Amino acid sequence: MIKNITGSIDFCEHLRGKKATFLLALSNTRTASIEGITQAGIPGKMYLTPTLDSEFVFSGEVRSLGDVAKTSKGVPTPALITRAVHLLNSYGDIELLNLGLEVNPKVQYIKQHNFDITPSEAISDGANIDAQAVFQKGVEFGQNYECKNDYIILAESVPSGTTTAAATAQALGYDCIGKFSSSFKNTPNNVREETIKKALENIDKNEDIFSILGKVSDNMLIFNAGFILGLNNKTPVMLAGGTQMACVLLIVNKILKTMQGCIDTSNLALCTTSWVANDKNSDIKSLIDMNELNINSYYADFNFSLSDHPALKLYDEGEAKEGVGAGGALIYGYLNGLSQEQITKQVEKFLQ
Amino acid sequence: MIKNITGSIDFCEHLRGKKATFLLALSNTRTASIEGITQAGIPGKMYLTPTLDSEFVFSGEVRSLGDVAKTSKGVPTPALITRAVHLLNSYGDIELLNLGLEVNPKVQYIKQHNFDITPSEAISDGANIDAQAVFQKGVEFGQNYECKNDYIILAESVPSGTTTAAATAQALGYDCIGKFSSSFKNTPNNVREETIKKALENIDKNEDIFSILGKVSDNMLIFNAGFILGLNNKTPVMLAGGTQMACVLLIVNKILKTMQGCIDTSNLALCTTSWVANDKNSDIKSLIDMNELNINSYYADFNFSLSDHPALKLYDEGEAKEGVGAGGALIYGYLNGLSQEQITKQVEKFLQ
Repeated sequence: MIKNITGSIDFCEHLRGKKATFLLALSNTRTASIEGITQAGIPGKMYLTPTLDSEFVFSGEVRSLGDVAKTSKGVPTPALITRAVHLLNSYGDIELLNLGLEVNPKVQYIKQHNFDITPSEAISDGANIDAQAVFQKGVEFGQNYECKNDYIILAESVPSGTTTAAATAQALGYDCIGKFSSSFKNTPNNVREETIKKALENIDKNEDIFSILGKVSDNMLIFNAGFILGLNNKTPVMLAGGTQMACVLLIVNKILKTMQGCIDTSNLALCTTSWVANDKNSDIKSLIDMNELNINSYYADFNFSLSDHPALKLYDEGEAKEGVGAGGALIYGYLNGLSQEQITKQVEKFLQ
Repeated sequence: MIKNITGSIDFCEHLRGKKATFLLALSNTRTASIEGITQAGIPGKMYLTPTLDSEFVFSGEVRSLGDVAKTSKGVPTPALITRAVHLLNSYGDIELLNLGLEVNPKVQYIKQHNFDITPSEAISDGANIDAQAVFQKGVEFGQNYECKNDYIILAESVPSGTTTAAATAQALGYDCIGKFSSSFKNTPNNVREETIKKALENIDKNEDIFSILGKVSDNMLIFNAGFILGLNNKTPVMLAGGTQMACVLLIVNKILKTMQGCIDTSNLALCTTSWVANDKNSDIKSLIDMNELNINSYYADFNFSLSDHPALKLYDEGEAKEGVGAGGALIYGYLNGLSQEQITKQVEKFLQ
């Protein structure tokens, strides 16, 4: 089942049975190296997560490390869900957006878009992003992008990305404290709050928007805001993610306000998981309502209640929640006739 | 599951979910009339096998004879597998290549490419093929071929084709004795070896390559070598077959060496069955490694362990093994979300 967060179901329904290009935006921010800030990966090797996720979604193999990226509690990456849907009802194409990676994915034959973007610094150290340049690369990519399928699923893998998203939204003046989710069941508020506090200390609220983004954000958030504006509604897009994708929309909203512009968003929707939509420690609906873009948003009413696997049960308990476009992948699966049972069984096969 | 023989899984993965044109190359060599040399068909009517196979894959009916081609032990043709996949997840198009048939298939609406090629003589009698002309027809077909789908599955049905392939590779100087498979569980070495010996007696190793091929080979092997060279990597191709397709590559390799040429083979792969890949009486990996073309190769990890049907069990015991693109068809099925169970059930329906 696909359920609404905001708007009507019609956007999803008009994509039923259609093929999507799965665009996976990958980036490293050194914020992820701050101890205890995320569990989206292997302690000490968080920077490998986007690399490993993309390898696994495309090839079914993890090549830059011996095993699938797991969190310290043994929660497997949501890439398992994204890959499971691909095996059962494939995406039309998968393409990778390299938005600053420490380690390039070891994959052949897949389209990899490179933008000469380097990993960003920790936001506690000022991030050091040329936000205007990264944004402009996103705009140009959107303007020139020709989708070979019916629509785009835009996903991301950015460890510690919810922290940079929360800092970004706060820095842009949104009233959003406590509304961003994390990969933990119980958000490690001390480390996270401390990091965000340090990030916000680096900015002066009178700075221009790109100067602010360059200090508190990450490449994925900035690039994708540009991509959406450059694409300008010409192709339907599912922003496949949780509060990070909500932050992309908040950036778009802020830029439009600053420039006194407006865009048609009828072809734009946000798609996430039930774990994000029903999370008690965050509030994605509020984050979506906070912008003036009138965005349709959805979640896949999927959980692991049909599985006995202890690692998958952790999702239902609130660990991991989203990433690698898992929510959008599930909705794509549902729009193509897959069942919760089929997807669950396929995910379980990866863990055997 | 798709497994590697050589190379990486990426070539297959980038074709996941995509549509293929199924090109079925059909040819008769009178080598098949030598008693006991093959069990790919009906004793005394071996020449009908490619005709019947193509009728069945396309229409589900065998029209040029009353019943599906069976071997003398009752092993049904691998065309059942190829047809089963087509029913469950169809090929984009099926096209027939008539490379010298005794009896034309009785099918309408399907594209049949005719090249004015006649069946070849038994290799023990010198084959009598104008190899240069057949090769040139393959080159021109490849140069002009426009694939209407995302890639090509190139399959074959040539009774006694492993014998002509073994003779061809030996005649070209490859060290390959004992590496070619046969349709028998226990290869009938006496008849086969005797036939190959007679074929090799007809050639002088100083003859030029086309003169040699004209005496020891078959039309399918020669034409497809030309086709690959003419196509020149412009479309992804799965060579769907076992050691016969490996021989096509050995011919390509030899021609390139003779002409001091080279080609990009990144869009070329060989796809076969587990029965060939795991056959103890042949060695496809060695045949693939023997050329210098760096070919990705795969097998479909499919068997009939989920079936109780005695005729299908014979496959798992080593009879039949491959043909009519069965291995490539299974990989196509797997790349489009089919399961071993679904394919097995569909094949069983044909035998009810």
